[in-house]
Parts: sequence; structure tokens; C-alpha cells
Amino acid sequence: MNYISVQNINNLSDWVKDALKIKKNPLKNKKLGKHKTLGMLFFNPSLRTRLSTQKAALNLGMNVMVMNFTNEGWTLEFEDGAIMNKGASEHIKEAAEVVSQYCDIVAIRAFAGLVDKEKDNAETVLAGFLKYATVPIVNMEGCTGHPLQSLADAITMEEHKTAHRPKVVLSWAPHPRALPQAVANSFVEMMQLQDADFVITHPEGYELNPEITKDSKIEYDQDKAFENADFIYTKNWSNYNDYGKITNSDPNWTVNAAKMALTNNAKFMHCLPVRRNVVVADEVLDSENSIVIEQANNRTYAAQLVLQKILKNEQ
Amino acid sequence: MNYISVQNINNLSDWVKDALKIKKNPLKNKKLGKHKTLGMLFFNPSLRTRLSTQKAALNLGMNVMVMNFTNEGWTLEFEDGAIMNKGASEHIKEAAEVVSQYCDIVAIRAFAGLVDKEKDNAETVLAGFLKYATVPIVNMEGCTGHPLQSLADAITMEEHKTAHRPKVVLSWAPHPRALPQAVANSFVEMMQLQDADFVITHPEGYELNPEITKDSKIEYDQDKAFENADFIYTKNWSNYNDYGKITNSDPNWTVNAAKMALTNNAKFMHCLPVRRNVVVADEVLDSENSIVIEQANNRTYAAQLVLQKILKNEQ
Amino acid sequence: MNYISVQNINNLSDWVKDALKIKKNPLKNKKLGKHKTLGMLFFNPSLRTRLSTQKAALNLGMNVMVMNFTNEGWTLEFEDGAIMNKGASEHIKEAAEVVSQYCDIVAIRAFAGLVDKEKDNAETVLAGFLKYATVPIVNMEGCTGHPLQSLADAITMEEHKTAHRPKVVLSWAPHPRALPQAVANSFVEMMQLQDADFVITHPEGYELNPEITKDSKIEYDQDKAFENADFIYTKNWSNYNDYGKITNSDPNWTVNAAKMALTNNAKFMHCLPVRRNVVVADEVLDSENSIVIEQANNRTYAAQLVLQKILKNEQ
Repeated sequence: MNYISVQNINNLSDWVKDALKIKKNPLKNKKLGKHKTLGMLFFNPSLRTRLSTQKAALNLGMNVMVMNFTNEGWTLEFEDGAIMNKGASEHIKEAAEVVSQYCDIVAIRAFAGLVDKEKDNAETVLAGFLKYATVPIVNMEGCTGHPLQSLADAITMEEHKTAHRPKVVLSWAPHPRALPQAVANSFVEMMQLQDADFVITHPEGYELNPEITKDSKIEYDQDKAFENADFIYTKNWSNYNDYGKITNSDPNWTVNAAKMALTNNAKFMHCLPVRRNVVVADEVLDSENSIVIEQANNRTYAAQLVLQKILKNEQ
Repeated sequence: MNYISVQNINNLSDWVKDALKIKKNPLKNKKLGKHKTLGMLFFNPSLRTRLSTQKAALNLGMNVMVMNFTNEGWTLEFEDGAIMNKGASEHIKEAAEVVSQYCDIVAIRAFAGLVDKEKDNAETVLAGFLKYATVPIVNMEGCTGHPLQSLADAITMEEHKTAHRPKVVLSWAPHPRALPQAVANSFVEMMQLQDADFVITHPEGYELNPEITKDSKIEYDQDKAFENADFIYTKNWSNYNDYGKITNSDPNWTVNAAKMALTNNAKFMHCLPVRRNVVVADEVLDSENSIVIEQANNRTYAAQLVLQKILKNEQ
Repeated sequence: MNYISVQNINNLSDWVKDALKIKKNPLKNKKLGKHKTLGMLFFNPSLRTRLSTQKAALNLGMNVMVMNFTNEGWTLEFEDGAIMNKGASEHIKEAAEVVSQYCDIVAIRAFAGLVDKEKDNAETVLAGFLKYATVPIVNMEGCTGHPLQSLADAITMEEHKTAHRPKVVLSWAPHPRALPQAVANSFVEMMQLQDADFVITHPEGYELNPEITKDSKIEYDQDKAFENADFIYTKNWSNYNDYGKITNSDPNWTVNAAKMALTNNAKFMHCLPVRRNVVVADEVLDSENSIVIEQANNRTYAAQLVLQKILKNEQ
């Protein structure tokens, strides 16, 4: 199996239960990955993903080989039939086939360029590895999704949810740099697998890809969206329609204590890294209701569950 | 022992047999390297060499410490007696002596600069480590040779050769960037250890170092060279006489199906990374006769044999 | 416990004895760190520290995860209350809390910027991790100290000292680049824990932070300082008063054979990397009295002692 998208989760509730079991006893399967090698290929920076995925592999007894394509390797060509007389030294076909021979699982991080929507939606790097690699592929954040994050988010919500059907709000917030839609997209897809009162709130014009949001509820009034919420998941993304552009930086969308007061004592979530006092005020991030650190902790168990399933050849 | 050059192979046929045994059972010596550390020092980018050598060490139970000198360490001085008041922070003498204390084997990649022929031929970095290190040194591609590649090439040819004495052709091909002669040099030296009908073909003026080619046959007519060949090994190199320059980029030297049709159904080999449709046409690289991926796979077993011999203190 | 400063050494003599025991049998505690993870975070280049600390962790059976913040991760914000709309993507609070969840010990290298004395003295990065991390922190060279180096220095001096109370000289030497005071500071602090005739020598105006030197003897005449010395520890530092500036590059301060002849056949020490024929002449560095390579070797055992104490929760 590959883990490319939240759509690869066949039963979210079971996966979350299994991940929580791993969290209680992370070394239970410490020999499962013996003599197996995880190759982690980075085309972009990473802190949490880099360390938590590596930690997950170590918990399973795997070997880990880390490679930064930005400065350690060759520039890759992704187009079939290309006449390679420009900058790229190696075609994805050879790179993927070769790496597959040294690794039992290959994990890849390759962000959206946010210039060419079609190219980003095609997930050039991940699709190239999927097409040519002969071992399972794990998505450590592609152009359009970050499914390890969303699985960690689901685990964290399970730990913090109260008895009733929760109201979960995904709220856009301003940010000084243009960011991908990947985290928001995967969160939406993950929420669509759950029974919850799910609302997306963002300024008009900041709609995510409608093929992902489908019939998820959109509320343009952030205050109204926050009413009675149990979880506020905040994340900036750049404009999807005016692709990759920042067309709004309204500080009124920053999540602060006044806004949190509208909720049902909601937990505050964010995937990190987060811009303090731009995306969210210190008073919220440093409050008892913030569960962002636990979210990051659960990245290890999300990754470990995925690696474990691949090693056990489960689906 | 060190593994610096193909000349360090005392019996190629035995080495190839031993490597093929390792390939059948890569974990047979999984405890041989226990508590031993391989230090991998990179002065240049690397994909196959980085991952296959690391994999080989892991198969032997070794610890691996990887270091990129380009961005993680200090700039080195190689000249004896230098007054070090310029860019270099550390002399190779200290660097090599110090690293020898943390590692049981040190592997080094340091490409030719292609500007100063004499300096490249002196193999400044490798020679510095050889002079001052107190542990075995492995060449992961120097200025003038890539003996781990050539050992993998020999293994791959052994797997694919038919009964008769094979005809093996090393063919130059065009390339948009100036490349070192290292791979070609080591391939020539390795072929000189074999019983084969070996021919080098390249445009006039592109002769490799005659001290390496010695009496190996050179044929300037590529078509004639390809006739009845069993193996076509293609590789670009920059001009050795007009040192480091690209003096020819004739697309007629690109290996395509028409040229392969002249051969005895030859296998196509290349060390990778390869520029598609510049060095070789897709129709050849994607054909059944292409064995480049298996070549890359055999890099692991070539490296493992070398590390194993060093750990066992064999020659 | 944390290991941030030489002040964290509660009994230097005992620590040195324990380190020498480790040196005799480095694998004695090879299972102590099983399933424990050392995170090594680099904000600056490193050779000795990188490899020796990693080797120490491997000797204890630990897993190691290495991360270069300069090119692999996010830029960090260290100011509380900052409105993060500039370059920094993540606040130290989240970074430290998150990394603490993936690692059992976190080691950090973050040099002085040598522009803002107050900021450097505040040890922004280390202090941030100390404030927010929830696991032990090891200083792999901060702005104002390099205590792993000084512990290795103490071990090396113990190995080479003769019967009597030694005379130890810390001598400034010229250098083409502005360097931090960290190594000199920690050496001074370490010497203050020893019974020795300790003298610091440097040009007038090059005084180290008086809060560190306290009542340590300062002698502006290098020749006079060298008289009858048993150990010459040479190190450049930039001006502390005219902060971070090079106000002296007098080649008369270079340590050469004539100066060493003034000593009591002194051992020559330096933390490396060292600028040959600027800081010290080849004739001294290559002499039998030079113990710089052994100093570097002892970095492994200094680091191993610190990690071992943390793992055993000793002080």
C-alpha cells in the first residue's frame, strides 16, 4: 500500500484506535522493521515531519536514510520524452527505480510551487515516484495534501473530544507569505470521513478546491462559524482561485481570545509552524485550550501507524 | 586496505563472485560491522553512491555518519606549508587525523574541478586523506576514478554475459555540461583486468588520459565500434586534452535504436544519472536491453564487498 | 540535568576520572541508551562536535537524529510577544516543545553573531531551548561557552600532566576572521576549577568578559607568560570590548618554536580547526609536543560522559 492521501484511510475510526494503541506502547513492534530501510527524500524544509517520521521508523526498528534533494542530490526531470539538455541531471524514472532498490519504503516531501495550478494539482514529484517506484510511497506533504498531519489531527481530536457530536471549524487566518493549501485540503478530506458538524470559514474568494470541499459547509462570517465550536483548527492558505496569491491579509481574521470566547470552550489546533500574533494571538496559543503541541506529538504515532501497516502489508 | 582505484582489486573474477554471493544473501554478515562506524564525507552531490554505500554498511551492521562538507563543515586547506589567512579554516592534516579517530572507515566523494588538470590528477582531497588518515579510505568518486561504480559494472556484466568472450564498447556521448573522466577511466581500467574484446569509441580529440587507456583499442567511428558488440557502456566526458572543455556536442553520437541495431543484441549500460535523449534515446533506455537499473542495484553489493574486505582485513 | 556550561560540572576531578574510564572501555554502557534518541540541532557548521557527539551517542546505543537548521528547517523567532510577520516561521517555544517530544536529549550548536554583545551574552538560542524544552539540553557550543571542548581539554591535560602543579597558559593568537570568545571563556572557567598556575596572555584591549576571567592572572607580555609553562593553549578570539572586531592581527603573537623554547617543554593545545602559520607555526603543530589530535579524540569521551550522566540521571 501507499499512503498518499487521506483517501487511503479505509476506516478512520479503526486507524485512530490503532494509533492510540501505538502511543501507549510505542516499542511494542520494535523488531517489525528490522533490516528494513526507510528512505526520506526532502525537496523542502521540514522539522516535525523530519523528526517524527524518523522517530516512528526507529520505534519500529527500521534503518533510516535521509536525503535532501535541494543540496545533496541531482535536479530531477519529470516530463516524459524530455530532451534533457537543460538544468535537470536525472529523470524521475531512473531516480525512483534506483531508490526503490535501496529502500523498502520511500517517504517524500515536495511542496506546491504555487505558480502553476495545473502542475501543482498533478503532484508532479509524488506522481512520478508513484509511477516509477517499486516500493510503497508515503506522502510527507505534497502540493495538495498532508495526510500524515491530518491523521495526527484525527488522533488528537479523538483524545480531546467530549461525548457529543463535535462542532469542528477550519478557519483561515492571515499570513505574510503565500502558503500551499495542502494542510487545509487534507483536513477537509479527513473531516469528511467523520461524523461531525464541520464548518470551513474564510474570506469570500478564498475557497479551497471545490473538488475537495465538495458539500462541506462554508461560512464567510468567522464569528458566526466559531459559535459553539468544540475545535478551532486554524491554518492559512493562499488564494486557490487567484492561484498562489495573497489577496487578503485582514488582521480581523487572526484568532484571539475574543473570538475563542464565542466557542464552546473550544480546543485550539494548528499544524505548526505558526506565526504568533498573525495567525493566532499569544493569549490563545499559550492558553490551556491550545493542543498544538500534542498534535505535533501525535505526528510520531500517525507516521508509525502508516509505516506499521505498510510493513505488515495491511490495508 | 584502502579502495581508491580499480588497481586495488587483486583478482577481479574472485571479487565479482564474492559480490554475487553477497547479493544472494546480503544479511549474512550482518554482525561483522557491529560497533564499527563508516564516515561518509561528501564534497559533491550524490544519490546512488550516498544511498547504496549507506545501505551496504547497514547490511553489515555498521553505524553510518554522513557529513556534507559543502554546507555542514569547514573549508579545507590541502597545501603543506600554507599560511592559512584566506578562506580555508582547517588543514587536511588535522581533518583527516581527527576524523580517523571517530570512524573505522572513511569514504570520500570529491569530484574533479575540471579547471586545473595537474591538480585534478593529483587527487588533492583523496591524496590528503590517504596521507594523513589512520583508517582505511574508500573512494566514492574522486577526480580521476570511480572504482565502486566499475566494480558494480563488472558484477552486472558477469550477470548478463553469454558464453563467448564478449565485445564491450565504451562509447562517448554528448552532454550539455562538462563532466569528469572518472567513470570512463575506471571502466577502462576494469576492462583491462578482463578477457574481452574491448573498444573505446569517441570523437577524435576526446582521448582519455593515455596513461590510463594504455594499449586499449580506440575506434573513432562509432558505428564500426558498435558492430557485433555485446555490451554498450555509454558515458560522456569532457575533453581531456583541451582540459575540461566541451569541444564537441554532435547529436550523432547519441545512442539510439538504429545504432543499437548494429550490435549483437547488446545490453545497454550507463552509470546514471543520465540525460535522456541527449546521451541516450528513450527507445534504448526504456528497452529490455537496458540494464542500467540493475547496475545501480549492484552498487550496494560492490560497496558491501569492499567494506566487508576492509572489516575482515582481507586483500 | 542540562550541560550548558562548565559550571554544570560539580566535581571536575571525578568527571575527568570517569571520562578516562569510558575511554578505556567505550562500549561498556552500550545498552544504556537503547531506544533513547539524541537530537542534534545545528545552527552553525561543525566537524569534530558533529562526529564526536554522534559517536558518543552510538557508543551508548542511542539513536541519533541530526538536523541542520540553516538549510533543512524553519527560521526561528526568539522574542516573546513578537508579531511574526517577518522572516521567522516558527517561535522557539513551539520548536523546543515539539522537539522535546521526539528526542530524549537535545544538543544544540548556536554561535555568537558577534554584532550585538547583549544578545550574544543572553545566549538567545540556548536560553530559548532551556526555557521551553522539556528534556535535557547539551551545549555543543553557544555564543559564550563550549563546555564539551573544555571537558575534553581537562581530560587531555590529565593524561599529559607531570607530577607537579602545572603552569597553564591560555594564549591569544591572530586570526583573519572575527571569532567568538566561547572556547576561551569555557577554558578559563574550567581552569578556575583546577589547582594550577594559570595565566591568560593577550594584547592589551583583548580582555575577555571580566565576569568570566574574575581574578585569573592576565599577563600582556606573551614571552613572559610562556616562561616555564607546561601547557600552552592557543586560541584566537575577537575583541570583547570593541565587540566582535579585529583590532589586532600582530603576527608576533603567532606561536612558533622560539616561543615554545621559553616553556618547560610545554604541550601545545588547540581546539581545532586551526589556521596553520597564522595561529601557530607548522613547526609547533607538527612537533611531538602538540597534543591537538588527542584533544579532538577526547571530545568523544567528554560527550559520552555527559550523555551517560544525563541517561543515568546523575549530577
